[in-house]
Amino acid sequence: MNDRLVDPADIAFQLDEIVDIDGLTHFARFAGQDRADYDAILETARAIATEKFLNHYAKSDREEPVLKDGAVVLPPEIAAGVKAFHDAGFAGAHHDAELGGLQLPWTVVQAAFAYFQAANIATVAYPFLTIAAANLIEAHGSDDQKRRYLGPMISGEFFGTMALSEPHAGSSLSDIRTTATLQEDGGYSIKGGKMWTSGGEHEMGRNIVHMLLARIEGAPPGVKGLSLFIVPRFRLNDDGTPGEANDVTLAGLNHKMGYRGTVNTVMSFGDRGACFGELVGEKNKGLAYMFHMMNEARIGVGMGAGMLAYAGFRESLVYARERQQGRPPGEKDPASPQVPLIRHADIRRLLVTQKAVAEGTLALALLCARWVDERRWSPHEEARADADLKLELITPVLKSWFSDAALRANEAAIQIHGGYGYTRDFPVEQIYRDNRLNPIHEGANAIQAIDLLGRKAGMKGGAALSAFGDEISATVSAARGAFPDEAAALEGAWRRLRDVTATLLQRQAKLGAEHALAPAQAYMDGFGGVVLAWIWLKQAQAARHMSRPYADEDFRNGKIQTCSYVFRWELPKALLAFEQLEALNDDQAYPPEEAF
Amino acid sequence: MNDRLVDPADIAFQLDEIVDIDGLTHFARFAGQDRADYDAILETARAIATEKFLNHYAKSDREEPVLKDGAVVLPPEIAAGVKAFHDAGFAGAHHDAELGGLQLPWTVVQAAFAYFQAANIATVAYPFLTIAAANLIEAHGSDDQKRRYLGPMISGEFFGTMALSEPHAGSSLSDIRTTATLQEDGGYSIKGGKMWTSGGEHEMGRNIVHMLLARIEGAPPGVKGLSLFIVPRFRLNDDGTPGEANDVTLAGLNHKMGYRGTVNTVMSFGDRGACFGELVGEKNKGLAYMFHMMNEARIGVGMGAGMLAYAGFRESLVYARERQQGRPPGEKDPASPQVPLIRHADIRRLLVTQKAVAEGTLALALLCARWVDERRWSPHEEARADADLKLELITPVLKSWFSDAALRANEAAIQIHGGYGYTRDFPVEQIYRDNRLNPIHEGANAIQAIDLLGRKAGMKGGAALSAFGDEISATVSAARGAFPDEAAALEGAWRRLRDVTATLLQRQAKLGAEHALAPAQAYMDGFGGVVLAWIWLKQAQAARHMSRPYADEDFRNGKIQTCSYVFRWELPKALLAFEQLEALNDDQAYPPEEAF
Repeated sequence: MNDRLVDPADIAFQLDEIVDIDGLTHFARFAGQDRADYDAILETARAIATEKFLNHYAKSDREEPVLKDGAVVLPPEIAAGVKAFHDAGFAGAHHDAELGGLQLPWTVVQAAFAYFQAANIATVAYPFLTIAAANLIEAHGSDDQKRRYLGPMISGEFFGTMALSEPHAGSSLSDIRTTATLQEDGGYSIKGGKMWTSGGEHEMGRNIVHMLLARIEGAPPGVKGLSLFIVPRFRLNDDGTPGEANDVTLAGLNHKMGYRGTVNTVMSFGDRGACFGELVGEKNKGLAYMFHMMNEARIGVGMGAGMLAYAGFRESLVYARERQQGRPPGEKDPASPQVPLIRHADIRRLLVTQKAVAEGTLALALLCARWVDERRWSPHEEARADADLKLELITPVLKSWFSDAALRANEAAIQIHGGYGYTRDFPVEQIYRDNRLNPIHEGANAIQAIDLLGRKAGMKGGAALSAFGDEISATVSAARGAFPDEAAALEGAWRRLRDVTATLLQRQAKLGAEHALAPAQAYMDGFGGVVLAWIWLKQAQAARHMSRPYADEDFRNGKIQTCSYVFRWELPKALLAFEQLEALNDDQAYPPEEAF
Repeated sequence: MNDRLVDPADIAFQLDEIVDIDGLTHFARFAGQDRADYDAILETARAIATEKFLNHYAKSDREEPVLKDGAVVLPPEIAAGVKAFHDAGFAGAHHDAELGGLQLPWTVVQAAFAYFQAANIATVAYPFLTIAAANLIEAHGSDDQKRRYLGPMISGEFFGTMALSEPHAGSSLSDIRTTATLQEDGGYSIKGGKMWTSGGEHEMGRNIVHMLLARIEGAPPGVKGLSLFIVPRFRLNDDGTPGEANDVTLAGLNHKMGYRGTVNTVMSFGDRGACFGELVGEKNKGLAYMFHMMNEARIGVGMGAGMLAYAGFRESLVYARERQQGRPPGEKDPASPQVPLIRHADIRRLLVTQKAVAEGTLALALLCARWVDERRWSPHEEARADADLKLELITPVLKSWFSDAALRANEAAIQIHGGYGYTRDFPVEQIYRDNRLNPIHEGANAIQAIDLLGRKAGMKGGAALSAFGDEISATVSAARGAFPDEAAALEGAWRRLRDVTATLLQRQAKLGAEHALAPAQAYMDGFGGVVLAWIWLKQAQAARHMSRPYADEDFRNGKIQTCSYVFRWELPKALLAFEQLEALNDDQAYPPEEAF
């Protein structure tokens, strides 16, 4: 197995010690499942990720999708990887057994996905998009729609996309112009252009199911007038098989810095007036439906960014151990042998910053997945509500703070490789380019910061903050014995966070949203730093009391030492951000337009 | 003219108000020159940069150098650009009139180069390497070597390279193995392989002059046994024209993330035992000679990184003004028109972080160039020594802190463009990839940090720190009236820096270099932040008292507002780094090897 993939010992540690995976098997939904089942699926994921995803990581970057005779041509390894993924049942792993799924916890599924993300983030995007589209249909579609679409999407015969953005709209979904006109048969005729549709057109599978946002004639302006449609590439015959083409045209491909294996398209719907769409759920509720999916997609983006950080960390760790380079400062004898890079303190700094982000993201994303399971399947209403609140609050932090940090981590992976890291001969170069997307897509990071400060921090009278605060308190209490300094520091940082939140919310009431939300990114900077510290204290504490050894003693030390690093070097940055926010004494956090 | 290039008003402001360019004309070296001469050369640079460098920026990335029948093939626009550069006299602009140069101040030459760096950093690398090689020969070569090589290098007939690193040596020049064996005719036979040689082989010009480090047989190990050689691609005939091939072989090309227009080579010297080299200066002094060049090259790297930040800033500023996207938070009417991106506070944050780095680097690099002129041409010995000390101290900061910050700035330029910034349709994508090299080459940034803390901070009993401290004091005094808060903050930050330096130097005496230098990067983080604050207070103060208007009133406001931004959001990070350094109470700043 390649060292680049996520460490299986770490996955096991996270599942047992951080997310209490066994606890999930008490839910009726997962009755009868046990840890051995989960281990088997994880091992399968790791094997397929290595053999069918990692194998073409470089190739599908080098040979990016091209248009040939109007068709999208991809390296054949992509289809082979996607097929293996579907054949092993991963696309339906979380679905009901009666839908052909394995009915596994989302937490386990996410842990399995970590391998695929670290192996080849671009190829796994195809099944991920299909899963997201299927989840939307499952949640909001009619029984008839579920019957016709879900099966083939789970099996990998049909693929899915999200056809949301438009060239003039970007992040502003409010400005979507694609129209849907009711037809006599109860269907809709779709007309409009979509931008940035990943997987919008290709020749894998037998059909592509576009989940498309459009405006029904007469609908109100803005996001309240958007409806969700199923728009298949090929219309379905009565027996459910793909039939005639549905007037969906590929207008062009976007050529990206990275993530190249995922074909990204400009799509045109209804050029000939013959594009058929099926309304999903109720009219004008499209964005609300989409947000449900998008929130889970955002967890996926944070996780994916973190798994690229993980891959870069593992690649650069191997390099740092093998590459002999230079001597420690103070070693005066030039005839002495060179030492491995890892002997240099600054190389270890570059490694530990990566480890903090990589393993921290894994822990946090799996906890989020656990909350997703809890929100949906917990027998206790209170637990469901509590999980929902935590997800509302932490999702933008995971998506945004951790994807920024993950890019920084990949920067460090290149730096460790020196000039070699800048060449296309080492994978860290591509990993970095791939990861540059994550702060942009699924809601640019600044939008996440505005969401955090403008909506989540004050939602339901601070209920989300309180729910997450209980997690912090639990960790502080548990760690007070073994890690008294860190426990006190985290407790203090959380108090500061609550205070600064109150200050900022008052400011919002006084100054209005535009001025008050201007420093939202600084709030996110601080908030994310506290979350990082929390997730590391939780890991360090768990490492002290592991129920079984996951690896050698260095594994435990690594968790504890990384926790120290985070508290020494990272958490203080969060406190500084809070201080800067509290020092804002006017309404102009950043220069006005005239300054440029 | 394209908006992407450095703002000519800013260049004029820097020359007049920050570096006092007129003051240089009092040096005998520059007697008779005036501002009009400088404006003319700057305008020429801007025109050539636009017409002959910017024109193929994307193309020479897309069509990177390839090997065809053993020869390196480059897009022809590169040779055309380089020729225009040489024809206009830029390669010899700073050289003596009698060598065919224009005898201009290095400061003016650097200001002219800013346009080329912003336009096409990869193409301008060819003349820059040639200039650096020529400078080495001018400084250390024999009269005969100067006579034979300098003329054709200035005119662009011969190109130059730095053949330093080797595959196993990387940053550790101490481990260079290439050998030089004295021949009967007094020349040397060179044998060995070199790695990362930019411009090592191509078909431009009539010859390539490799400045090569090798070890003469019997020389001591380490850097004290390295000698500098001129190794031409074609041996010179008696009349100075290129003659027979000199057994210099291209072993391969490196394929990079960016900077692709600059062909980067693996070279082999003396495979057939027939590679001739000429010793430059004295035996075993090669590294000392090289360092002289390398220090100026490091200023160039910092400047180049900053000019890429400048280019990204200007590109994203245009985009932020033109692109209509979303509405301010609080605007509830979805039927209201979208607003330009620049209306969003976070976009202005992303702009001002770029402006701070871009214009800050320009100011700092031009000051460094001014000190280079002063060190060489000032009539006052004290001024020469003072300039030398400041250069010793600030060069690693400019190279390292500012190249890290510049990469961050380019990250922001992409973020402003959203998904479009991630495509290869907008130049910010390439600018970012190009800039990723700067923290790596010419001494990786960690090595600069070790140089700063381990050598420069304590050199000559703290003389370099004191010399630079005088600059800080002068700025503080001048700014105290108009900017009392910032002046006090800078004064306090400098005091903190001096204190923490003393602490760290004591630590070094106590713990030894290896442990004491471990947190060198944190010292650099703090040091660079103070330098940024200083350069911006200097600019803000100058903006208040401009001797003439360089642009409209917004230009002045922009300088002052950016200064406020730096003091509010950036300088406190430096103070935090100092606090963290002073809090280190053991000898392990970062986790040990066993933590990984």
